[in-house]
Amino acid sequence: MFLTRSEYDHGVNTFSPEGRLFQVEYAIEAIKLGSTAIGIKTPEGVVLAVEKRVTSSLIIPSTIEKIVEVDSHIACAMSGLIADSKTLIDKARVEAQNHWFNYDEKMSVESVTQAVSDLALAFSDQEDEVYAMSRPFGVALLFAGVDETGPHLYHLEPSGTYIEYEAKAIGSGSEGAQQNLQDIYHKNMTIKEASKHALSILKQVMEEKLNATNIEMCTVSARDKTFHLFTKEEIEDVIKEM
Amino acid sequence: MFLTRSEYDHGVNTFSPEGRLFQVEYAIEAIKLGSTAIGIKTPEGVVLAVEKRVTSSLIIPSTIEKIVEVDSHIACAMSGLIADSKTLIDKARVEAQNHWFNYDEKMSVESVTQAVSDLALAFSDQEDEVYAMSRPFGVALLFAGVDETGPHLYHLEPSGTYIEYEAKAIGSGSEGAQQNLQDIYHKNMTIKEASKHALSILKQVMEEKLNATNIEMCTVSARDKTFHLFTKEEIEDVIKEM
Amino acid sequence: MFLTRSEYDHGVNTFSPEGRLFQVEYAIEAIKLGSTAIGIKTPEGVVLAVEKRVTSSLIIPSTIEKIVEVDSHIACAMSGLIADSKTLIDKARVEAQNHWFNYDEKMSVESVTQAVSDLALAFSDQEDEVYAMSRPFGVALLFAGVDETGPHLYHLEPSGTYIEYEAKAIGSGSEGAQQNLQDIYHKNMTIKEASKHALSILKQVMEEKLNATNIEMCTVSARDKTFHLFTKEEIEDVIKEM
Amino acid sequence: MFLTRSEYDHGVNTFSPEGRLFQVEYAIEAIKLGSTAIGIKTPEGVVLAVEKRVTSSLIIPSTIEKIVEVDSHIACAMSGLIADSKTLIDKARVEAQNHWFNYDEKMSVESVTQAVSDLALAFSDQEDEVYAMSRPFGVALLFAGVDETGPHLYHLEPSGTYIEYEAKAIGSGSEGAQQNLQDIYHKNMTIKEASKHALSILKQVMEEKLNATNIEMCTVSARDKTFHLFTKEEIEDVIKEM
Amino acid sequence: MFLTRSEYDHGVNTFSPEGRLFQVEYAIEAIKLGSTAIGIKTPEGVVLAVEKRVTSSLIIPSTIEKIVEVDSHIACAMSGLIADSKTLIDKARVEAQNHWFNYDEKMSVESVTQAVSDLALAFSDQEDEVYAMSRPFGVALLFAGVDETGPHLYHLEPSGTYIEYEAKAIGSGSEGAQQNLQDIYHKNMTIKEASKHALSILKQVMEEKLNATNIEMCTVSARDKTFHLFTKEEIEDVIKEM
Amino acid sequence: MFLTRSEYDHGVNTFSPEGRLFQVEYAIEAIKLGSTAIGIKTPEGVVLAVEKRVTSSLIIPSTIEKIVEVDSHIACAMSGLIADSKTLIDKARVEAQNHWFNYDEKMSVESVTQAVSDLALAFSDQEDEVYAMSRPFGVALLFAGVDETGPHLYHLEPSGTYIEYEAKAIGSGSEGAQQNLQDIYHKNMTIKEASKHALSILKQVMEEKLNATNIEMCTVSARDKTFHLFTKEEIEDVIKEM
Amino acid sequence: MFLTRSEYDHGVNTFSPEGRLFQVEYAIEAIKLGSTAIGIKTPEGVVLAVEKRVTSSLIIPSTIEKIVEVDSHIACAMSGLIADSKTLIDKARVEAQNHWFNYDEKMSVESVTQAVSDLALAFSDQEDEVYAMSRPFGVALLFAGVDETGPHLYHLEPSGTYIEYEAKAIGSGSEGAQQNLQDIYHKNMTIKEASKHALSILKQVMEEKLNATNIEMCTVSARDKTFHLFTKEEIEDVIKEM
Repeated sequence: MFLTRSEYDHGVNTFSPEGRLFQVEYAIEAIKLGSTAIGIKTPEGVVLAVEKRVTSSLIIPSTIEKIVEVDSHIACAMSGLIADSKTLIDKARVEAQNHWFNYDEKMSVESVTQAVSDLALAFSDQEDEVYAMSRPFGVALLFAGVDETGPHLYHLEPSGTYIEYEAKAIGSGSEGAQQNLQDIYHKNMTIKEASKHALSILKQVMEEKLNATNIEMCTVSARDKTFHLFTKEEIEDVIKEM
Repeated sequence: MFLTRSEYDHGVNTFSPEGRLFQVEYAIEAIKLGSTAIGIKTPEGVVLAVEKRVTSSLIIPSTIEKIVEVDSHIACAMSGLIADSKTLIDKARVEAQNHWFNYDEKMSVESVTQAVSDLALAFSDQEDEVYAMSRPFGVALLFAGVDETGPHLYHLEPSGTYIEYEAKAIGSGSEGAQQNLQDIYHKNMTIKEASKHALSILKQVMEEKLNATNIEMCTVSARDKTFHLFTKEEIEDVIKEM
Repeated sequence: MFLTRSEYDHGVNTFSPEGRLFQVEYAIEAIKLGSTAIGIKTPEGVVLAVEKRVTSSLIIPSTIEKIVEVDSHIACAMSGLIADSKTLIDKARVEAQNHWFNYDEKMSVESVTQAVSDLALAFSDQEDEVYAMSRPFGVALLFAGVDETGPHLYHLEPSGTYIEYEAKAIGSGSEGAQQNLQDIYHKNMTIKEASKHALSILKQVMEEKLNATNIEMCTVSARDKTFHLFTKEEIEDVIKEM
Repeated sequence: MFLTRSEYDHGVNTFSPEGRLFQVEYAIEAIKLGSTAIGIKTPEGVVLAVEKRVTSSLIIPSTIEKIVEVDSHIACAMSGLIADSKTLIDKARVEAQNHWFNYDEKMSVESVTQAVSDLALAFSDQEDEVYAMSRPFGVALLFAGVDETGPHLYHLEPSGTYIEYEAKAIGSGSEGAQQNLQDIYHKNMTIKEASKHALSILKQVMEEKLNATNIEMCTVSARDKTFHLFTKEEIEDVIKEM
Repeated sequence: MFLTRSEYDHGVNTFSPEGRLFQVEYAIEAIKLGSTAIGIKTPEGVVLAVEKRVTSSLIIPSTIEKIVEVDSHIACAMSGLIADSKTLIDKARVEAQNHWFNYDEKMSVESVTQAVSDLALAFSDQEDEVYAMSRPFGVALLFAGVDETGPHLYHLEPSGTYIEYEAKAIGSGSEGAQQNLQDIYHKNMTIKEASKHALSILKQVMEEKLNATNIEMCTVSARDKTFHLFTKEEIEDVIKEM
Repeated sequence: MFLTRSEYDHGVNTFSPEGRLFQVEYAIEAIKLGSTAIGIKTPEGVVLAVEKRVTSSLIIPSTIEKIVEVDSHIACAMSGLIADSKTLIDKARVEAQNHWFNYDEKMSVESVTQAVSDLALAFSDQEDEVYAMSRPFGVALLFAGVDETGPHLYHLEPSGTYIEYEAKAIGSGSEGAQQNLQDIYHKNMTIKEASKHALSILKQVMEEKLNATNIEMCTVSARDKTFHLFTKEEIEDVIKEM
Repeated sequence: MFLTRSEYDHGVNTFSPEGRLFQVEYAIEAIKLGSTAIGIKTPEGVVLAVEKRVTSSLIIPSTIEKIVEVDSHIACAMSGLIADSKTLIDKARVEAQNHWFNYDEKMSVESVTQAVSDLALAFSDQEDEVYAMSRPFGVALLFAGVDETGPHLYHLEPSGTYIEYEAKAIGSGSEGAQQNLQDIYHKNMTIKEASKHALSILKQVMEEKLNATNIEMCTVSARDKTFHLFTKEEIEDVIKEM
């Protein structure tokens, strides 16, 4: 009597008899094909580390950008359809700048995440928003930042749902990585420890051998509330210390 | 001669030969996948208690928000596709503020519920309303509040129908919980009793062991008509007293 | 050579080879799932009685509204998808108020019914009317009122067709009820007799035992042309007299 | 190689390989389900007689309106989806009034028919006309009137084609009735004779026994160019004389 | 590997793998179902003769209009879905009047034909033109007229293609009629001869016996460049002379 | 695993798994059904020769126009759905006139071709351009002209791609004709030789016997940069010389 | 349970259950049918070399343009549906000119690439952008240029993703060519070496014998930051030196 799953796939915004929205679930699958990204929150700040898939030695790795600066106090790592993230990051940046301009204060990490969530939700309202798409975004984002209430790490998924985490992994290796994070995490980690942990977990889930060119890494420090993207040398230092 | 159910599923707003609208019914299914929420009305006020599904120890539970303040005298608990509730809650808040601004009085709980119901009904009128969606909302809401006519508890479902209840459970455990509510409810309950009953019923239907971090709880008191969200400590107190 | 019925169901506004519009016929089916409502016209006025389905003892029955006041001289009972009736009742009220405001006289019952019929017909003209829907309304209405030409009872169905009746039953029990009405009806009934007949017919077609909380009842009296909704006590009186 | 008929049904405005438009043909079928209507033109004026289907003794027959006055000199009888005729009759009335207002003369019967034909044709031009529908109208109309050039009887069908007739039957009994009309018609009929013929032919094709409440009848007289709807008594007189 | 014809029928404006547009071809089929029309060009002017299908003796034949006057110097005969021709004829008349008004000269027959061709082509550009349709027109037209360059006869078909002919037949009997025209045509025909030929060819292809009421006939004379519709008597004269 | 070709045909603008756009390829098929056209560039100018399909001796051949003047220095020959070419030719003429008006110089042949190519490409952008269609154009064009940089011959196909040729054949006989052109072409041909070659190649690929009425021919001379359409006599001269 | 790939192909912007967007992947296939293009970055500048498919000896090869100048300091080579590239190149040129006009400096190669990427991404936002298409672009681009930060070579594919390369091949021979590039590439190549390498790799992957008319070649030199398209003679010189 009930339909098989297949009949409900076509409409981007149609319920299945079990009350599911398949296009949103499939968008989440797109992320499982993406490269792994890891975020860890510590009292000293937040660290993000991302795998880069450098499929050819002729690629210039620095042009594969998986970590971006949203504002001086907020970073964002992504996994999935990178092209989709562009719109979301633009939205985040505009909102953060507007907030700063209008209220003369840094926008909170949660508010930035929520603004992007609003956009992700808008995919089915076909006409109102300039940024809106005709399908769910196929990308997951980790927002890492430090604001008045301290360091924060938010995970936003294609459904528009966002949740704050102590530590979170996304992408193809996320299942194993998240298990590892749960094992090693403790509340009083230093940011240095967190950086090392992030890399060693990435190392375990990556198919390629981890080195200074196929990962990207940043911190947002609690002290100066500032985004810092690791140079190749700094990454090599962390690798050596591991 | 008659079609099987499947042929009528695709159109979001098409009658089946038996006169049914399947997309609305499937949206109601989405709620049966949601976490359980319970509301109890007493002469002293209304209490809402909601299960939180904290799927990882690294999640920061307070960011999973299942109970929100609509206005100082109205709370709302939700179950189903939480992302969908955002639009409905925004509508409720805007309407409540507008009413207060225009008439210098608190909006009644029923009027707030009706305003949200109007929006839920609008899903098929594709073009008029800014908030309108292309499918029914996949979320159920419990509006709890106190107005000139005393405490009220309204249940709003995806079809846009809303009914006032003495006590109501929604979400995956709603069937058992509603049965329990029917057994324990009496008209002269204190709000303290109601809180304990709400938690003990949640305890029975939740898969996880109930504790202060995986539930959320609030009251709107009849005395001061004010929303109060329980702190972790207050919830622990109720648990202990159980 | 001819198609089976099924191929014509999808288009909301497509003729079948026999010249039928199935979506309208299926909307009529939606009403057969609704609760039973009865209207009886007498020289002393019109009476409406409606079954309420109170599925849980925790529901507050008065919030299930199946009879509404359109204007002080016109009542409306409904059966089917109650959420759909909202738009139609709003239209009826606005038209009645506008008429009174513009012409300083009460709008006739037929004119109110016709205004709502216009709206029910508009479902396929997708763009012109603010109220218009993308499918036929799944609700039947009984308009009962008293105007310059005396008492009137109109039945409006999803196709937009309306007909005046001496007595009419709609909803799941309408077939049996209409037969009963035909048997007991005579032109010189008092409104008291009509009320008792309405309740005793409802009693026969309702699954639940009829009592003062699971029915709703009103009269529009010919003398003062005024809508009167029965209180619980008044209904109990009628039940006792039966 | 050629498709069966079924594949061409879905598009409301698509040619079949034989060059047919099925939706228009199916709309014509809708009329074959309607009640029978008869028009006869005589030198003394035009007579229209229509069957009413009074399915319940509690229906008030006068509310089933199958003959309407378009202008004081033009009547219209209809068969098929009566709800559809509303838009067409409105158009006819507005055009007739506008003509009278603008040119200070009565609009000719043909011009009124043509204006309604224009509207019937507009069903596929989805956006221009306020009155336009998304499918052909499922109703046939007989326009009977008297203008400067004498009495006229026009038949308009769903395709928008209209033809003048001496005498014409439409609806479920039209085939037999048209044959009868052909047999009895002569050019010098009095309007009284025509009335009796119309009723006796209706009598033969109606399932119910013909009486003064289940038919409707009117004349537009050539002398005073005025529409006259028969009262119950006048119809009874004609029946007696038969 | 290739699809059968059927798969390409649905889209009104989609190429089949052989590069064909089936909806246009099917519209041409619609014309093959229409009544036969014949045009003959002579140095003395152009003659048009059309079959009328008078399916009932109660039809008033003059209301079946198959030849119309576009301007005083241009006539048009049609075959196929007559209702469709209305829009095209309106366009022709408006263009002819505008030309006369703007340039103070009669519009050439070719220019009129081209203006109508533009409209016939516009069917797929759904939004720009007021007159545009959502499918090809199901009607063929013969434009006969006399302008500065003498007599002309143009044939316009649903694809929008128009070609000048010496003599042309359209409609259900066109194949046989065109063959006959080819046999009898010579350049120095008088208009009287042409009239007789047109009728005798129509006679051969018509199912009904040809008489003065079931055909329509007109000439546009080269001398006075004026449209003349034959009266019943004039047609009878031609028939007698045959 | 892969779909057969058929599944990708329906969408006018959808890629097949091999990365092909079938509607564009089918439009190219439409041209293979068209009459053959040949263009040859020589230092003395460009010659175009086109087959006309005169299917009936009653057609007036001059109304079948397969070669048109775009501007005094540019001619265009076409093959395929001639009705489609109208829009493209209009565009070419408007652009050429605008250029001349704005810059006081003749538009180059390439620029004219490119302007038409832009329009051919626009078919899928449904809303912006007045001229845009909902499917690819089913016509191929040969633009022949002489500008500042000498004689040019451009071939434009439905995909919007245009390429300059020394000599090019299009239409149903294009395959054989192109082979012939390749054999006979040399850079120092006189325009007279080119004319004779064009006709003798057409003669080989045409089904009908070539004569002065079933072909059309023109030159754009390098000396005076002027379009010249051959009269019947001039064509006969070339035929004789062959 | 899972669908085969085919069911997800139709929607241009629908996720498959594995989270893939097939239309984008098929667009990438379109490029695999295109002619091969090669770009190599050296400290002295960037070189681009492209295969031209001259299918007939009567084609004038210079009109097949596979390398274009975007700005004086940026070149672009393309492979795939060349007609699609037009819109993208126009966008690139407009952006480059605007930047120069507004900021009085040359736009960076990355910024130009990003502007075109924005447009490629916009294909599903049907209404906002003038340039937007209803499907992904079926073309890949190599942007080669020299700006303030030295020589750059960017590869943009239909998904909108762009990556910087040291050397990159696209089109039907890209797989073999890329392998060759990886073998021969070293960081200190002179632009002359790069030119020879590009041609010798093209030679290996081309079906036709490589010569001065069936390839196109350009450099953007680091010294004068200027685009230079090789003449036939210059290409012949490079071939000779090989």
